[in-house]
Amino acid sequence: MSEPIVFYDLPGNAAKDKAWSPNTWKTRFCLNIKGIPYKTVWVEYPDIAALSKKVGLSPTDTDPSGLPHYTLPAIYDPNTRTAVAESIAIARYLDRTYPSSGPTLIPKETDALHMAFIQAFRDAFMDDAGQLVLPATCAQLNPRSEAYFRRTREEWFKAKLEDFAPAGSEKREQHWKGLEKGLHTVKGWLEADGTEKLHFMGDKVSFADVYAVSYLLWMKLILGPESEEWMNMMRWDGGYWERFMAEFDKWETVDVGTAAEM
Amino acid sequence: MSEPIVFYDLPGNAAKDKAWSPNTWKTRFCLNIKGIPYKTVWVEYPDIAALSKKVGLSPTDTDPSGLPHYTLPAIYDPNTRTAVAESIAIARYLDRTYPSSGPTLIPKETDALHMAFIQAFRDAFMDDAGQLVLPATCAQLNPRSEAYFRRTREEWFKAKLEDFAPAGSEKREQHWKGLEKGLHTVKGWLEADGTEKLHFMGDKVSFADVYAVSYLLWMKLILGPESEEWMNMMRWDGGYWERFMAEFDKWETVDVGTAAEM
Repeated sequence: MSEPIVFYDLPGNAAKDKAWSPNTWKTRFCLNIKGIPYKTVWVEYPDIAALSKKVGLSPTDTDPSGLPHYTLPAIYDPNTRTAVAESIAIARYLDRTYPSSGPTLIPKETDALHMAFIQAFRDAFMDDAGQLVLPATCAQLNPRSEAYFRRTREEWFKAKLEDFAPAGSEKREQHWKGLEKGLHTVKGWLEADGTEKLHFMGDKVSFADVYAVSYLLWMKLILGPESEEWMNMMRWDGGYWERFMAEFDKWETVDVGTAAEM
Repeated sequence: MSEPIVFYDLPGNAAKDKAWSPNTWKTRFCLNIKGIPYKTVWVEYPDIAALSKKVGLSPTDTDPSGLPHYTLPAIYDPNTRTAVAESIAIARYLDRTYPSSGPTLIPKETDALHMAFIQAFRDAFMDDAGQLVLPATCAQLNPRSEAYFRRTREEWFKAKLEDFAPAGSEKREQHWKGLEKGLHTVKGWLEADGTEKLHFMGDKVSFADVYAVSYLLWMKLILGPESEEWMNMMRWDGGYWERFMAEFDKWETVDVGTAAEM
């Protein structure tokens, strides 16, 4: 590898040097864990589609009106002249292209099990977590992204962000209970065989860990590490999630990067 | 290993030599795949609790009124004087106790991923499949089990079995659509990395396969292999599920066994 990979991320104003997005954190963790050199390019939401087309990326999805939808994370690897979008596809690309750089994140024989994990984790986590932190996630974006994020999310969820789970509401309380239950289910997977494992693959770091820690870090950054809500969450399951996250502290480094030239 | 393991199963009158239960099929597949000698003892539902206590098994669950609930599958291994209930726990026991007998069904480092798989598969499959085949499942039981099964299931689901998804109803049609969608999601996990895998761990048979094939075989036995509904289901996903099941034909053998002496 001679040149650093270009890593496209979404800038925000949460605590961690602009980096806040759980989806792009997945890729940052993959790059950091593998020790692959990269430089960050910050892209505002309304610029993702144009940038994606420019570097030769395919849409990762369709939007509710059926139009192509481009998303971050994405990378461009100048060494292979390859552009890849979507965190799981990027993890597979890095495993395949740089097999001797750090651990294999998705061992081939666990690919389908990883996909099932992602489905089950998302089902246990996302509905409640989304209601709890999407409004504050929106609020810390730069103005152009903020307007775009609000419009698209409110269209998708058919609700005003302010109505998701307002501070002090009974609804918010219910979502906290739902999230605690969901994460408790996930914790159950880690000790089902009678031994408490720190990682989803036992001693080995894998993409399953990256997936979970990225969402937890998102909540930590958006709620604030000193907030009552976050500190309470870190007491769930006997403090397990705090111990889990501490394993990833060393891979939380954020490259300063540059803004995308559009 | 000098003596065969005792395998406790639920007798019925579906096509496969009495064996119909998806839960006990999981254990039969584990034993057959590993080539571990066993003899079957058939137990009617109302006798499970007494038998479990007799052989020293713990309850696997609590019932809706909070009382201990005993379930099959269960095994008693005379070689180690150990009784184990619940298919995942039995698979782990067999892996651990007979490591040189056939493939490892739940490789240790995949235990948590297996648990996530089970959660995600169940979420994708069980609600629709249960509505579609529980009433006919009940109908093929022997009278004592039939009465017990009907009473407990109707209490748990708070509905008469006859109202689940009657033949020809719009409701049944909706559950078929839901199941097709659910299994299509599962199929997606198997090809997410761009290669179609036959097994959930690629080339290797694992408990994830056993879990899925046991539920599919249950549907096949209850609906009937020649039924229109089953034959239609085997055309989903380009016939994938038929190819998947064919891999397990050789492990579908059923030991004649004896009735439990109560």
